Amino acid sequence: METKNKTHSSELRQDLITGDWVVIATGRAKRPEDFVKNSRIISENNVSECLFCDPEKSGQEKDILIYKDKNGDWTLRVFPNKYPAFIGGKPQSLEEGPYFAMTGAGFHEVIVTRDHHKQAALMETMEIVEVFDAYQERYLDLMNKKDVNYISIFHNHGKEAGASIAHPHSQLMAIPVISPYVELELDGSEKYHRQNRHCVFCVIAEYESKVKKRVVFENEKFIAYCPFASRAAFEVWVVPKKHSPYFERTASEGKISLAEVFGKALHSIYKALGDPAYNFYIHTSPCDGKDYPHFHWHLEILPHTAVWAGFELQTGIEISTIPPEAAAEFLRSRQNL
Amino acid sequence: METKNKTHSSELRQDLITGDWVVIATGRAKRPEDFVKNSRIISENNVSECLFCDPEKSGQEKDILIYKDKNGDWTLRVFPNKYPAFIGGKPQSLEEGPYFAMTGAGFHEVIVTRDHHKQAALMETMEIVEVFDAYQERYLDLMNKKDVNYISIFHNHGKEAGASIAHPHSQLMAIPVISPYVELELDGSEKYHRQNRHCVFCVIAEYESKVKKRVVFENEKFIAYCPFASRAAFEVWVVPKKHSPYFERTASEGKISLAEVFGKALHSIYKALGDPAYNFYIHTSPCDGKDYPHFHWHLEILPHTAVWAGFELQTGIEISTIPPEAAAEFLRSRQNL
Repeated sequence: METKNKTHSSELRQDLITGDWVVIATGRAKRPEDFVKNSRIISENNVSECLFCDPEKSGQEKDILIYKDKNGDWTLRVFPNKYPAFIGGKPQSLEEGPYFAMTGAGFHEVIVTRDHHKQAALMETMEIVEVFDAYQERYLDLMNKKDVNYISIFHNHGKEAGASIAHPHSQLMAIPVISPYVELELDGSEKYHRQNRHCVFCVIAEYESKVKKRVVFENEKFIAYCPFASRAAFEVWVVPKKHSPYFERTASEGKISLAEVFGKALHSIYKALGDPAYNFYIHTSPCDGKDYPHFHWHLEILPHTAVWAGFELQTGIEISTIPPEAAAEFLRSRQNL
Repeated sequence: METKNKTHSSELRQDLITGDWVVIATGRAKRPEDFVKNSRIISENNVSECLFCDPEKSGQEKDILIYKDKNGDWTLRVFPNKYPAFIGGKPQSLEEGPYFAMTGAGFHEVIVTRDHHKQAALMETMEIVEVFDAYQERYLDLMNKKDVNYISIFHNHGKEAGASIAHPHSQLMAIPVISPYVELELDGSEKYHRQNRHCVFCVIAEYESKVKKRVVFENEKFIAYCPFASRAAFEVWVVPKKHSPYFERTASEGKISLAEVFGKALHSIYKALGDPAYNFYIHTSPCDGKDYPHFHWHLEILPHTAVWAGFELQTGIEISTIPPEAAAEFLRSRQNL
């Protein structure tokens, strides 16, 4: 990594046709030449040169949050992303001809656990709880900031899943617009409730817990299953059994149940697919001051099992080559390895 | 490749929350073990064992279409995909608990050009015209079939773009549902027309042709530009300048103009990014018997310049690290290499 680029900037541009947003964040890859195929090499860092093993030494900015063990050694820390996709400040409107854009105002933080070699799939329940504690603590701090309307929390593991640093870390982006994918789920769950007087996520969780065939693991409070309409082979969702629109309101004991189910599910994926690359992320209600009583927060795990090719890119219809029922069965069989 | 799997089946499953569709097509990867990381190796075929260099010899089914040169040698052929994601027949409803699905009824064809080593980015204008001729001819044949409501035409080049066979080929899938991405554009363009009394694609094409900074290449009939809200670095759209909802109605001289602009744009990408993987595909109106006067067909080229990571997967908001203006400038500078 290089020193911070002075010309770093971020812009949220709206697609004039669909209304969707994209971010143009420069400063990470600076020149067009950087995109030439052969120069795009992402090296797996080793411990001695890892920026996240000793963030202070590597010139990382001040911690936003630090958790320590009883000996005073750090176990988890949160700091600003050195190459942020969103940069603090008030969103400014930018117009050009028929187009609309705004400055990419917001926050972009990195949540780092200490052990370079212990990826999320290998963590103990209480180590995962600490990660969720940090997600929640940062969420609660950022949700009331002016102009923050959505907080995206996600984790990339492995090069194919977009991780550019091998050391386990999650990221949090607090942004002024509502994520289009969450919007689809918000609209869908609102519509379902209007038509059926039930939360669609509650209906699914209850049905899956009853028929069992797509369940990977469940306890009293949470259920992990391969969705009926899985978008990727071995996709797993972790859903609270009790209706709850807001992740950030999860109580302490809830976090332990969540960590148990999530940990079991991710570990099954790790075993079943032989240490694959994966992403996981939280879908929770926006923090734009409105209420979302029909929504139901959850966590989605997407192992990297296929490449999005022309058909998926053209249509938005994904092709999966294994029925979720078979995927869940295989994951269950690898659970206690 | 193995012999045709007897248990091959295809199912379109609807996401109960968002209404989106996914395809569960088994028979391509059969057992859960096939997903284990180390076994997923896609080899670059060489000519002597290439299935598409001599489709007859490799046991490919009968041609649906064949083009020949003046010596009687084939130059392009179309045949059914051996591992189809959609399989002929009438769509049957499938229900399970709260969920809805249907059999994946439809057609899945492969369009192969002869030269193993001549990828689309290296083709002459008239060679590209022949490919568009085949797209159009197959489109016109399939569009009136019962239960075909959308026809997706796309091309994958390179492993990272999802091509599993190195020999240049496009694919066509005729499906019973309308692609959600096209639906977003249909809705958006309809809404824009209602509010502004103009076609949004016409407005964009005109504006881009005027300001020039995002234009890669244009002629009298077509324009290629990097979209203002590009989803990926070096994304390029090829759009007819004259309003036209239906690709399949493109006249012969239109196809030559299209092939010139598309060929120039793709060749610039090839030169600028050093032979990258890419996808391109057509967005045209559905063929479900309705009219789509507000839509404007176009072709999208997506070079594989980045991996979709957690934020993109979580939100649907894509992060691009180069402004489209800079990308277009770079592409223009590589145009005549």
